[in-house]
Amino acid sequence: MAPLRKRVYNLLEPSVSNSRASRVIELLLITLIFLNILAIVLESVKDVNAEYHHVFKLLENVSVLIFTIEYILRIWTSAENPKYRFKKRYYIFSGMAVIDFLSILPFYLELVVGFVPIDLLFLRIIRLFRLFRVLKIARYLKALNIMQAVLRERKEQIFVSIMFILFLLLVVSTLMFYAENEAQPTKFSSIPATMWWGIETLTTVGYGDLVPITTYGKILGGMISILGIGLFALPAGIFSSGLTEHLYKSNKKKFKHCPHCGEELDM
Amino acid sequence: MAPLRKRVYNLLEPSVSNSRASRVIELLLITLIFLNILAIVLESVKDVNAEYHHVFKLLENVSVLIFTIEYILRIWTSAENPKYRFKKRYYIFSGMAVIDFLSILPFYLELVVGFVPIDLLFLRIIRLFRLFRVLKIARYLKALNIMQAVLRERKEQIFVSIMFILFLLLVVSTLMFYAENEAQPTKFSSIPATMWWGIETLTTVGYGDLVPITTYGKILGGMISILGIGLFALPAGIFSSGLTEHLYKSNKKKFKHCPHCGEELDM
Amino acid sequence: MAPLRKRVYNLLEPSVSNSRASRVIELLLITLIFLNILAIVLESVKDVNAEYHHVFKLLENVSVLIFTIEYILRIWTSAENPKYRFKKRYYIFSGMAVIDFLSILPFYLELVVGFVPIDLLFLRIIRLFRLFRVLKIARYLKALNIMQAVLRERKEQIFVSIMFILFLLLVVSTLMFYAENEAQPTKFSSIPATMWWGIETLTTVGYGDLVPITTYGKILGGMISILGIGLFALPAGIFSSGLTEHLYKSNKKKFKHCPHCGEELDM
Amino acid sequence: MAPLRKRVYNLLEPSVSNSRASRVIELLLITLIFLNILAIVLESVKDVNAEYHHVFKLLENVSVLIFTIEYILRIWTSAENPKYRFKKRYYIFSGMAVIDFLSILPFYLELVVGFVPIDLLFLRIIRLFRLFRVLKIARYLKALNIMQAVLRERKEQIFVSIMFILFLLLVVSTLMFYAENEAQPTKFSSIPATMWWGIETLTTVGYGDLVPITTYGKILGGMISILGIGLFALPAGIFSSGLTEHLYKSNKKKFKHCPHCGEELDM
Repeated sequence: MAPLRKRVYNLLEPSVSNSRASRVIELLLITLIFLNILAIVLESVKDVNAEYHHVFKLLENVSVLIFTIEYILRIWTSAENPKYRFKKRYYIFSGMAVIDFLSILPFYLELVVGFVPIDLLFLRIIRLFRLFRVLKIARYLKALNIMQAVLRERKEQIFVSIMFILFLLLVVSTLMFYAENEAQPTKFSSIPATMWWGIETLTTVGYGDLVPITTYGKILGGMISILGIGLFALPAGIFSSGLTEHLYKSNKKKFKHCPHCGEELDM
Repeated sequence: MAPLRKRVYNLLEPSVSNSRASRVIELLLITLIFLNILAIVLESVKDVNAEYHHVFKLLENVSVLIFTIEYILRIWTSAENPKYRFKKRYYIFSGMAVIDFLSILPFYLELVVGFVPIDLLFLRIIRLFRLFRVLKIARYLKALNIMQAVLRERKEQIFVSIMFILFLLLVVSTLMFYAENEAQPTKFSSIPATMWWGIETLTTVGYGDLVPITTYGKILGGMISILGIGLFALPAGIFSSGLTEHLYKSNKKKFKHCPHCGEELDM
Repeated sequence: MAPLRKRVYNLLEPSVSNSRASRVIELLLITLIFLNILAIVLESVKDVNAEYHHVFKLLENVSVLIFTIEYILRIWTSAENPKYRFKKRYYIFSGMAVIDFLSILPFYLELVVGFVPIDLLFLRIIRLFRLFRVLKIARYLKALNIMQAVLRERKEQIFVSIMFILFLLLVVSTLMFYAENEAQPTKFSSIPATMWWGIETLTTVGYGDLVPITTYGKILGGMISILGIGLFALPAGIFSSGLTEHLYKSNKKKFKHCPHCGEELDM
Repeated sequence: MAPLRKRVYNLLEPSVSNSRASRVIELLLITLIFLNILAIVLESVKDVNAEYHHVFKLLENVSVLIFTIEYILRIWTSAENPKYRFKKRYYIFSGMAVIDFLSILPFYLELVVGFVPIDLLFLRIIRLFRLFRVLKIARYLKALNIMQAVLRERKEQIFVSIMFILFLLLVVSTLMFYAENEAQPTKFSSIPATMWWGIETLTTVGYGDLVPITTYGKILGGMISILGIGLFALPAGIFSSGLTEHLYKSNKKKFKHCPHCGEELDM
């Protein structure tokens, strides 16, 4: 049995086997995921959904069938993956396996809903799990692997800056609530409601649905804007700089030696 | 008496004593501060305040009691802190002690309001001092210490850039006031009122409550936007870069060697 | 014949011949392009178009005549350009030649419209090709050459970051659609419609035409803002940093020496 | 006479003489400028202007008197300034002297308006020249000198990026005009009008007074946003990075040598 499992594993992992058949399977799976994403997006457009409902239904059935087979085969063959064979980790609990499982779960729950009493609201929420199919593309997107690596490298810095932002948001929103609540009791109705203003302002989105109108509120808002603007871009900024560095490094690795004397350069 | 004071000091400063009891006390104090922050936020939501008013009242009383004890003990034991014992500085005037004091002050002022004639508006403002409890968390937030260090390092640069911004804001708002005042006399009613537009625009928040409508105003606004955009992010940008550097330094210390002699560099 | 072709080529390429006559021709062509850009902009203003329609018509005829001659001469003399003579590439398919062609095409199509049956809607779209005259200025704008060089240098990084952004946009818009669709069915009417909100928010433009109003939507929007803000500036940020580096390099070339052997470094 | 001129020159230039009297005069002048700025700002507030009109009038008269004396003395003593004595340059045409002149001009023009026939609209515009008094502070603001130095250092880069932005704005606004003009003929009424949208969007200000509503317009606007966002921050970004570098350099100059071997470091 081992040779068959090994063969299937190779078919599912083109990066290991490098065979042509595995590349074709990969391409088919990616195409299917893209079709599913397209279906999710188009189904949300009422007119399109009305006219092509049966097409979406067919795609749903075919997709679940193929994704289920893929899921079972991946679990079965995971024993071939050295990452899961030697270390005491289970593939079934890995991020991608969970996504694979959740993205087909709603279909089967809907099947049993006639036999088992399942709460309908619960089912409706479960149905949203179909959206996990969007995340299935993560397996194939090189960009996301890079993002993940950057996030891991910088996680401490990003955590510190998010802590700082949340503290700033709390202080700023509390102050603004006391400045504007009396003048606009329905808009700045509570501190949590004012936080929406705080996020909007400190990220510079500024929709304009919540705007201070009192003199105190405007002075406070102005000072907050001048001093706080850009701090909310800190986590993303740290992430961006990490990403740029990451992409730059792999690009310029060859220049890390002086072309004249061959010594390594610490730049 | 000295050994007792020393023992209490150690209980209040886990970073000094490293004992288990002090860690438990720290955790309790942090929990209490978080409960107070939560109460401040939730009390601002009308429905929640109506239903749980007695819970908030109870928390208030317990908190003030504990915070008062903490405040007194900290002042008493501050003599054990080498920072305040040898240098001629008083703990009672340090930032955190003032915050501790102001955050319990409203409770005691409200108690005496029946006996001593205190202006009610004054009391209402004093009541806002409860919000200083949010700042009590600063003692435990490592992130804020880093922020403070960065602010100290970069204070000159941040000061210069804020000066520049205020000058720019003044010039820009004066020009825009003369361009738009006639067409929108209630919106661009004065130079200070136009400064609100200036801050909104130069920080790119752009709520849309003040928008130039004359041709001159739009040309002026366009030029101001193209040339001035981003300058308001200067102080925050300097701060961000200082923070990133700070966080990066501790991360990558090992990579800094002088290329001439190979010794480590403290940068 | 060769000497004449060579002479015309030199007239059209001042960077090659450095002659005075060629500089005059270049200046005339640039002036004509600027007049055409001005005409396109001013024609769009109704009042101006009504009054000066015959001036625009005259400019159009003269411009097409000169641009046609220029186009024919450039193709004829391209054989003199070593870039196209030795390598098997055709000037006629180069970017600038295509722009030159498309920018005069509408004029000739309108001429034949009486004789050949051309669809009027098609003609109307073709007429927009006149706008390609704006791009003719690219030949003379040093800034655009730099931009192009930077884009080529960083194309991989920009591609990865755009991929990431599109994925983020898809996930974010899908979630927000399910949060807001019920409360605002006409505004958040479908996932593609919600993408407009996603772009507006994540770029921090925030017009305010689409704003979440439900509690879920606001919490989701707040989290998206805090975590995602600035990521949409990634491609432009990479481009900007590439440009700054590019401009900086040519400015500071003298300061780059290898610290080991002292030789100049080409970075 | 020379010794007197020298003495007066020293009084007006504290940086040269370092005398106490000159510092007092400098302080007085700065105070007067600040009072004038305050007056300009407060006069724009209708209520304040109505009540304190005579105070502003008095300040105006006193200010013009002192500023006129200052102006005359500065011109007279400019011969003592080595910058203007040896090189063939005239102080009277320097930036600060022109600002000094223009800021007192309106007062004298208003005086002669009874005797000489001056157009009233012209006079009204001239009266705005009073605003140049705000710029008089530039002589004393160290921050502005730094800004000027940075602008000079980076002027080429800033010029190239502004060229690029204007080209981008033209292309983007032309395209959006053709996409939205039909659906919103009063808002996107012409290409220049659409440029206001272009600036608002590409700077991410996003007031929301001009928003594309057609599908084409939204797709175009979305693509423009994703690709163009942040490019408008380029000139300011170059300026900011120049400023940060400038401020950083003077701050860390001492670290430019390796503390171990004393060799210079190229960082």
